[in-house]
Amino acid sequence: MNNLYSFYNFLDLAGTFAFAISGAVAAKQRRLDLFGIVAIAFVVACGGGIIRDLCIGAIPPTGLTDWRYLLVSLIAALAIIFLDKWVQRLNHPVLLFDAIGLSFFAVAGARKAMAYGHNAEVAILLGMVTAVGGGILRDVLLNRIPVVLEKEIYASAAMVGSVMVVVGTYLGWSEDWVSLVGIFACFGLRFLALRYHWNLPVFQDKTPKCN
Amino acid sequence: MNNLYSFYNFLDLAGTFAFAISGAVAAKQRRLDLFGIVAIAFVVACGGGIIRDLCIGAIPPTGLTDWRYLLVSLIAALAIIFLDKWVQRLNHPVLLFDAIGLSFFAVAGARKAMAYGHNAEVAILLGMVTAVGGGILRDVLLNRIPVVLEKEIYASAAMVGSVMVVVGTYLGWSEDWVSLVGIFACFGLRFLALRYHWNLPVFQDKTPKCN
Amino acid sequence: MNNLYSFYNFLDLAGTFAFAISGAVAAKQRRLDLFGIVAIAFVVACGGGIIRDLCIGAIPPTGLTDWRYLLVSLIAALAIIFLDKWVQRLNHPVLLFDAIGLSFFAVAGARKAMAYGHNAEVAILLGMVTAVGGGILRDVLLNRIPVVLEKEIYASAAMVGSVMVVVGTYLGWSEDWVSLVGIFACFGLRFLALRYHWNLPVFQDKTPKCN
Repeated sequence: MNNLYSFYNFLDLAGTFAFAISGAVAAKQRRLDLFGIVAIAFVVACGGGIIRDLCIGAIPPTGLTDWRYLLVSLIAALAIIFLDKWVQRLNHPVLLFDAIGLSFFAVAGARKAMAYGHNAEVAILLGMVTAVGGGILRDVLLNRIPVVLEKEIYASAAMVGSVMVVVGTYLGWSEDWVSLVGIFACFGLRFLALRYHWNLPVFQDKTPKCN
Repeated sequence: MNNLYSFYNFLDLAGTFAFAISGAVAAKQRRLDLFGIVAIAFVVACGGGIIRDLCIGAIPPTGLTDWRYLLVSLIAALAIIFLDKWVQRLNHPVLLFDAIGLSFFAVAGARKAMAYGHNAEVAILLGMVTAVGGGILRDVLLNRIPVVLEKEIYASAAMVGSVMVVVGTYLGWSEDWVSLVGIFACFGLRFLALRYHWNLPVFQDKTPKCN
Repeated sequence: MNNLYSFYNFLDLAGTFAFAISGAVAAKQRRLDLFGIVAIAFVVACGGGIIRDLCIGAIPPTGLTDWRYLLVSLIAALAIIFLDKWVQRLNHPVLLFDAIGLSFFAVAGARKAMAYGHNAEVAILLGMVTAVGGGILRDVLLNRIPVVLEKEIYASAAMVGSVMVVVGTYLGWSEDWVSLVGIFACFGLRFLALRYHWNLPVFQDKTPKCN
């Protein structure tokens, strides 16, 4: 039991680290300064959770009170700045960690929303926000269209994980089962999507441009 | 009385639908995928109301708890994806619904802020945020300057509607009168602005660029 | 004592004015309309404080309830629109006021977070958010990468001010000392950075572009 708890903690911080890495890499590519790289790493790692906490009334947001997230973001930023070549070799591990982070954040977000007494819709929506909110903020701050809205099965995988949490909870599964099933459903879908290059459909636009 | 309530409900969902349509159209033009189109439709329809609810302490935000908004956004997104030509003919109705949505959201936002016990300034500002917040989020996510800040009498019409709610409430009008006057003031101004191409002034910039 | 209080109030509004000016100048350069210029001026002046208040549970946010901030933003916007040449001569005073605003907002933000009973990390992070959040929102709305993430010692100065508040409070200094030391530390660093063109390091990017 205690081991499972430690394992959750490890997954949580591993996911945070992977998300922070993705922020730091993007920030460095855009030539932000030292502060900018650390800030974007932190925003990707904690932004989604902060929006979730504001929406469920968990004040102040955990992302602001728990120094471990800030520390992990800082380490990720410094790793990207100073250990460039070492990190480049990590591309596959980073994608793997990122999928772990996605799964863990979606499940943790949905469970926290339900623990605060909110309904299934709130849990599913905020599970997704927890998982993809940070990446959307990263892209907004770096002045580009959020990649999660454009392609890939990413937010959809988070949705599947959140839905499993809600379904499992309504079916009365134990907390550990709910979490494990949610994490594996999300991770499995994301892993298969990466492995076989699955994408959601994009639709040809026949309307004349008129914005 | 009950009929008036049903009528409000219809206006609310009609406005939500029009806002979601505007989001889905813009998202499809930018070639977002299925998830992106639904997400932007939902953000335009519910984003302003969610920001308002966070600011007045209505936790969790109605936009996240009421499944009807999500369903209407989904229908709007699917309509834009699959019924393209049919929707193209709807340009005038959509502009009309959009003006209804603007009026209804501005009035509902200002009234909700006052119902939570906040002052006139909060009610007017959050009435405007309810009405135009979703459209601003849409443009930020689609990586362009919010059109509501650039031209047209749109946010100003929302302001007039919110101001009428505050004035009417202070004068002791009945709730129905307050709502009707606010909605007609906002809708009338927006309609005239569309009809006669009224815009707010833009000012020539004589300062040298220096950002 | 009372004089010190009045002096704080003056600094608060002077900083608000400077922030609003920076918003109005940027909005006018991008050729936003009358509403857009006022809106951006208000967002720069109050946006950071509003995010802080949402995160610490100070509902509704002060920026929405206190009409003086709205009035000051309006005056700043009108000054930029109609008194162009007069304001152009003010470049140095505006940079000075902006540094005052930065210092005052960082210190006021950190103190408010502590007054609401939150820990040191929350106080430091939200002190920075109060000081730089409005400018980041301005740049996001105007569709560019936030300048505060790209260069200059600006957010870092806000961090130093917030840290001084936390350190001083833990050391048991009087409220006035805490504020004065924080303001002077932040202002001094910002002033020296402007005077001697100090910047944070930017790092060469050797990774291949791969987003």
